This record gives sequence, C-alpha cells and structure tokens, in this order.
Amino acid sequence: MSAPVGDIGLIGLAVMGQNLILNMNDKGFTVIAYNRTTSKVDHFLANEAKGTNIQGAWSIEELVAKLKRPRKIILLVKAGDAVDQFIAQLVPHLEKGDIIIDGGNSHYPDSIRRTKELEAKGLLFVGSGVSGGEEGARFGPSLMPGGSPAAWPSIKEIFQKTAAQVNGEPCCDWVGETGAGHYVKMVHNGIEYGDMQLIAEAYDILKRGLGLHEDEIADIFNTWNKGVLDSFLIEITANILKFKDDDGEPLLTKILDKAGQKGTGKWTAIAALDAGMPVTLIGEAVFARCLSGLKEERTRASKQIAGPQKEPFKGDKKQFIDDLEQALYASKIISYTQGFMLMRETAKELSWNLNYAGIAQMWRGGCIIKSVFLGDITAAYQKNGNLESLLFDDFFNKAVHKAQPGWRRIVAQAVLWGIPTPAFSTALAFFDGYRSEIVPANVLQAQRDYFGAHTFRVLPGKENAKLKAGEDIHINWTGRGGSVSASTYSA
Amino acid sequence: MSAPVGDIGLIGLAVMGQNLILNMNDKGFTVIAYNRTTSKVDHFLANEAKGTNIQGAWSIEELVAKLKRPRKIILLVKAGDAVDQFIAQLVPHLEKGDIIIDGGNSHYPDSIRRTKELEAKGLLFVGSGVSGGEEGARFGPSLMPGGSPAAWPSIKEIFQKTAAQVNGEPCCDWVGETGAGHYVKMVHNGIEYGDMQLIAEAYDILKRGLGLHEDEIADIFNTWNKGVLDSFLIEITANILKFKDDDGEPLLTKILDKAGQKGTGKWTAIAALDAGMPVTLIGEAVFARCLSGLKEERTRASKQIAGPQKEPFKGDKKQFIDDLEQALYASKIISYTQGFMLMRETAKELSWNLNYAGIAQMWRGGCIIKSVFLGDITAAYQKNGNLESLLFDDFFNKAVHKAQPGWRRIVAQAVLWGIPTPAFSTALAFFDGYRSEIVPANVLQAQRDYFGAHTFRVLPGKENAKLKAGEDIHINWTGRGGSVSASTYSA
Repeated sequence: MSAPVGDIGLIGLAVMGQNLILNMNDKGFTVIAYNRTTSKVDHFLANEAKGTNIQGAWSIEELVAKLKRPRKIILLVKAGDAVDQFIAQLVPHLEKGDIIIDGGNSHYPDSIRRTKELEAKGLLFVGSGVSGGEEGARFGPSLMPGGSPAAWPSIKEIFQKTAAQVNGEPCCDWVGETGAGHYVKMVHNGIEYGDMQLIAEAYDILKRGLGLHEDEIADIFNTWNKGVLDSFLIEITANILKFKDDDGEPLLTKILDKAGQKGTGKWTAIAALDAGMPVTLIGEAVFARCLSGLKEERTRASKQIAGPQKEPFKGDKKQFIDDLEQALYASKIISYTQGFMLMRETAKELSWNLNYAGIAQMWRGGCIIKSVFLGDITAAYQKNGNLESLLFDDFFNKAVHKAQPGWRRIVAQAVLWGIPTPAFSTALAFFDGYRSEIVPANVLQAQRDYFGAHTFRVLPGKENAKLKAGEDIHINWTGRGGSVSASTYSA
Repeated sequence: MSAPVGDIGLIGLAVMGQNLILNMNDKGFTVIAYNRTTSKVDHFLANEAKGTNIQGAWSIEELVAKLKRPRKIILLVKAGDAVDQFIAQLVPHLEKGDIIIDGGNSHYPDSIRRTKELEAKGLLFVGSGVSGGEEGARFGPSLMPGGSPAAWPSIKEIFQKTAAQVNGEPCCDWVGETGAGHYVKMVHNGIEYGDMQLIAEAYDILKRGLGLHEDEIADIFNTWNKGVLDSFLIEITANILKFKDDDGEPLLTKILDKAGQKGTGKWTAIAALDAGMPVTLIGEAVFARCLSGLKEERTRASKQIAGPQKEPFKGDKKQFIDDLEQALYASKIISYTQGFMLMRETAKELSWNLNYAGIAQMWRGGCIIKSVFLGDITAAYQKNGNLESLLFDDFFNKAVHKAQPGWRRIVAQAVLWGIPTPAFSTALAFFDGYRSEIVPANVLQAQRDYFGAHTFRVLPGKENAKLKAGEDIHINWTGRGGSVSASTYSA
C-alpha cells in the first residue's frame, strides 16, 4: 500500500460534510471522504468533488490507512448515538496521539465525556462548534474547537485556514478544555435566538406600532445595517422584508407565525438555570418561540381578550426609529453580557480556561450572529482578558448610557400600545437590576425566614449585636414560630 | 405479639415529621414513629409526644409489625438516596397492597420511577407534596398526593383530615398518577417564587419609586390584604414591613439582598423549557434570585452605570397605588395561568389525569401560596374541568381586563424610573403575546429558512400555488442557496 496522503478525514457526506470537504480542499488540504452508505462516496467523487484532490474511502480501515499521522478525522454525523458508534468503530484502528473531531451539534456534556474516554485510551478528542450553515461550511464557517489541548497544534492550520476570515484574522481559535467548544457553540446558538427575537420585536413595533409597510421597514433595517447594528441578521432581515410573493405582497406576511426550534436555545437556558446565572434574554427568546407555537390557543385568546385602545402615534417618527435602534443595540449588549457571564461562570465551575477574546473573534464572521459588534467585543476582551462584564468596558459602558433614554421610551411605549416586547423588556429589567446595589431580594429573604426559618444575613454596614456579619440569622417574626431554623425542609 | 394498632407509620423525626405525627394524632389516628437514629424516637416520645396515642418503633421490623393492613408508611426524609434506601429496607417486610408514601421534596421523575418499581412488586407508592412548613405540618398542611391510584381510598381519610381545611373543604385531594403529586408540588413552589418576586417588585416601586417608608408600605399591604390580593404572603409581608429592629429601624432594611433558593423554582423553569411552555414569570423569578446573588458584582456595577435622572413623582399617588394593586393582581393571574398551562401540557405528555379544581383547592389553604384567589381558581375549574386557560374564565377574563390599564401604567413608569420589574414586565409581555393572533415569529421562520433552509409553513388564508397548506416550504431567498432543505444541521 502506498504512503498515506490524507491531511484529514471526514465522515458524513450530508451537505454540511461535503461543503466542509470542498472548503478544506480549496485551502490546499487533501481530504479523505467516507460515508457509511458508500454509494454516497462514489456519488460525491463523481460530482461535487470531481477534479479536486479529494479522495474517497469505502471502509473505516481504508479511511484510517489513507491518513498521515497523527491522524485527524472529523465526524459530521447526527449528534448522539451515531457519534459514539463511529468513535467505537474508529478506535481499534487508531494509534496514540490520533485525533477524533466531532463537528456536529453535540451537547457539551457528551463532549466532556468523550474527551475523557478517548484520552484514557491515549487518543485525543476535539468537539468543535461549526456555525454558518451550508454556505459557511463551503466558504468559511465559524469554528469553535475545544477538547484535548494537545490536539490544537496539529489541527490549528487546517482549522484556521478553513474558517471564515475577517480583516485577515481567522474566525477560529482554541476555545478551551473538554466540552468547551460545544459549550461555546451552544451559547452562540442561544445568543442567536436572542438576536433573532430582538429583531422580530423591532419589526413588530414598526409594523403594529408605527403602522409601517414591510418596504419601509426594510429601508430602516438597511439604514441600521450601516451603523452599530451592522450584522448578518439585520442584513438578511432587510432582504426578507423586501422579498415579494408573485402577487407583489411581502412573502413575510404569508408565513405562519409559529417558530420552530432545534433545542440548543433551550439547552442554553437550562445551562443558565443550572449555573445560576441570569441569562434572561435567551430565556425569554426561547419562551417567545414556545408561545408562538400555541398558534391555535392564541387565535382563540385574541377573540376573548382585548388590548388597550390603539391610538395613532403622534410623536416624532424619526426620533422613535432612532430610539428603537438604540433599544435594539442596548438589548443586544445585555444579551451578550449575559452570555459571557454564563461562560465565565461555567468556566469557573468546570476549570476551563476560556479564551474570551478568541470566542468573540470566532463569532465575528462565518456564523449567523456575525457582526461588527463582535469586533468591538473582541477588542474589549483583548484590552482586558479578565473583564468581569461587558458593561464595565469603556466602549460598551458609553454605548449603553447613550442608548438608555431611547431604550426606556421604546419599552414604555410598547407596553402602553400592548405590543409584546419580552426580550427588550427583560434586557432593561436586567440592566436596572444589575446596576442596583440594593435589589428587593431582602423581601424574599425575610419571607423565607418568616415562613420557613430559612435564615438571612445582615446587610454590610447594618451589623449590630443581634445581626452579626457572616452569620445565618433567624428571627422569631411572630412570636409563635420558635427559634428553630429549617434544615431539610423547603416550603 | 399483640394485634397491630397503628393506622400509619412515619419515618423521619425532624421537625416536619414530628409535627405531622402530632397533627395526625390530633385527628384521631394512631401513628407509629420511627427514626434511623432511634434515640430520637425516645426523645420524641418522652417530650413532644408525651401523653398522646403516638407509639414508637425502634426498628423497621417493629414499625411494620405495628401497622394495620394495608400498611401505610410515610417517609419524611431527605430527598434522594435516603428515600431509596428506606424503600429498600421496607420492601422485604411489606405485603401486597401495602403503601409507601414519600412526603419529602422529591423530584417528580424519581416518584415516577418509584411508582413503577413498587407496583412491579405488588406494592403501592404515593409521592405527596407537603406544603406549609413546620406550622402547616403541625396544624394543617396542603397535601398533594399522587402515585398509585389504588392507594388513594386507603389513605384518603387520614390525608384529608390531616390537611388544612378551608370553608369545611380539605386542602387535599388525589392529584393524579405516578409523579403527579410531586410535580404539582414543584409547580406550587415555582408559583411561590413568582408570587414572592411580584411582592418584592411592588415593594421596590413603592420604596424607590414613590419614596415611601416601610410603615407606609405595610399599611398599603394590609389594605391589599382585604381585597383581591388577600393571601398569606401579602399578610406576612405587611408584618415583615412593620417589624422593627431594637433601634426602631425596619429590620427589613438591614437584611442582605441576596436571595437563597433550594432548587424547586429552577426545576419548574426547566420543566417548562422541556415541555415547551412559556412559563415566563417563574423563569424571571428564578433569574431575579440569581441576579440578587451577584451582590458584589452589582455593587461594582452600581458605581459604573448610572440610571435615568430620577424625577419626583408628580401624579396621583392614590391612583398609582391602586394601579400597582391591579398590576400585582394581573401579573399573578398570568403566573397561575402559565402554571396551569404547564401542568396541562405535562399531563398530556405523561397521560396523567390531573384534577385541576382539586389542585387549586389543595393550594387554597395550608401552604405558602394560600389565598382567596385560589378559591376563585377552584371555582373556575369546578365550572369547567377542561378550561383551556384561566384567562378564558369569565371571572379572570373580567379581572384582567379591569386591571390592564393600571398594569400598563405601572410597568411603563417603572421602566422610565429605572426600577427593575422583570416579573411584572414578563407577565405583561406574555399577556400581549398570548392575546395576539399574529406574533412576529414569521420573522424568525423567514430568517431560519433564509440562513438554514429550515422551511416554514403558510399562514392560513394566504395559501396559493407555491404556498400550500400543510407543506414545509423552502424559498430560495437569495438565488444562491439552492433548494436543498436543511436536514440534520442546525445553525
């Protein structure tokens, strides 16, 4: 048998896999393509891959034999059992230091487990987020690899050349240990849910609030796309708004308002709840999709529940639209602030060394949330890798202060109009809670101690003989409850 | 050995267990008390249980031997392994038809599992929510039993007599199959988080917004407690507000604003995400506790982020306070609407026959969320057991319409003041989304189809030759993407 020629192997020849292979081939790498149903390999080589350096393999053994060492094999197969099955098939043929890369939408706990299992066998594992859809895969995705750090030097060149490039910088860097790559991809998807929901709310306000036509709204989005909101999602929304059905009506107005979801937004919200971090905007975005799903119930409700009397807008439309841009921008800043808070907390819990500037840079291009804005986040973390909160960075601090008055006017107006803005509203509520030294959680603690003897602590500066710093204090609020603190019982 | 005399046995002599035994004894039942550390049995009999009919057992065998058949044994031990361990110890000594009751704070999936495991052995299992804290346990808790339906006739009398009574009706009824009892208790706790958060926000608005003193706020709460908000939590909050430290300052103002949580609110939020139901108010209440926990970060943020210029309130204070009462009431209606939607969905998924009127009646008294309001919910479900939504019930439909103007004014004012009202706001956003026949989720679907070929469906009434009802439609938005729909890949 001839010497191995393959720089990397890829298993799974669905559209994403094929496109990623073609992309890597374009960048000068020799890719070995394999698929369980091997007729797909023949078809791919005879069609899309014709005239390229791409080679096929018709068995796992052949795939492995054709790869240079350390071998690098990307799986682009359905998340779940299929990943474990291919890993099990590969392992007997691999040697120490070979690298299995899972590029699918795996849940990060699986990637944590797989890293440990493969490292115990002397192999290396990389779980990599791949974002950007089919087009991203073909021409430059956002790649978020994490797992065995020892794998990075071997895959760095392929990954960074294959990824999208923004201003000469690749949208790919090492994320962190074990499941960090898939974790960060999950947060990316959650943030995507948030960004999309914010855009939907802005559209709703312009349509139902100001009564604008889709063409007018498209113009507004196109204008916004030249400013601080410059991003892929704003751009495509403008295109969507302009897109006409054959009868000249905007196609958008004929689309059923029932949003699908594949679960990664939900994963992010659950991860936030588990980490105890208030990632409220993604939470609301997920719930907004859930509510949209109750189409029939909403339709019945719309006939039984009246909103406020709708009064035509009498203010300055130009000012209102500028306010809305600021509301969208500020809410987006909050959403990313929350997302990075979640990553920070999880990194602490799981002892990951997350590369925050790198993460922002990875999202800067190639993926659905790509934006100029992410360049500003990259800069913020490059300036200060230990930045506690985006809101503490000068640039974002100024931005949010500037946005604040318009943001408040928009939310207040939407509330009076009866237009739902769950994401704008929760962003503002978070902002006001976050900047409050005192929040009314003292009421909760007093209630919990009153009815369940759950104890409380004293506010710094208010200590006295009965209220000692650092002590769990129970008060006999009624004279009836006794002084026993609750132990295992939670009401 | 003499004939067994025990009507019921109880394992776990912490405060909750002792109090529940004393309560059952008061109601005329002979209870056998057992504890792993048997010195606790001695102590209990020599003290709290002295002069009662309560008997002790110093081994599992003795406990079982002292019980009349079918045996009924309540576990009041720490949720988790301890429950399984006691079940494993009990099983060899029990006979067909005997009943093990878990009265702890177990997570409902465990109760589903235990029901199946014990029924497979010919035994019966009941997972019962027990709410009301130590005082409830002693004088009448809210009891929410679910599990093996065949167990209910045997335990009904003990449970209903031991539970709190409201207007002659026991706050206990059969909830439903397998894990339904603990599920409903979990939702109860989630709703409790929501109710508490709403009260905290009302306090914050009165204090930071209107600038009122705790004594004035207590008077407002006492007034509210005579109206639609009449409830235990409003009552104790008034008492808390009046409670002075030795120096005459309200103790509340000296309590650290960092809320604890034991996890059942989080469970509810995760259950909502898993069920795909928009239980936004509980979600925000849980996240508000998380944000309160970031005390040090908030303190730093408060020094770096300025809110809006605070202008003194110039409106009609009386009207504002009435509006706030309505905002609190309407938000509460939304929270319970969401909670019942969640239970409805889960019952459908798990094929439970939930007793909704019974659930409201169980929460009517004995527990932390007890209120007059729950009597109205009971009435709504008694009128229509298949009520789709509380908002469709005449009473609540009128109530929410009446509350709406004030509710909107409060949220808008809080937003302009910079006082965070995550729960009030999300309730209103849900309300406005729920009563919207069209929500802007069409934008999300268009975006998803644009970047990921995820397809969409046509809005009813807008069908044409290209947009067919019931079909998954993909549009080539840009002329570049091809007509392939996404299959396994989700961007």
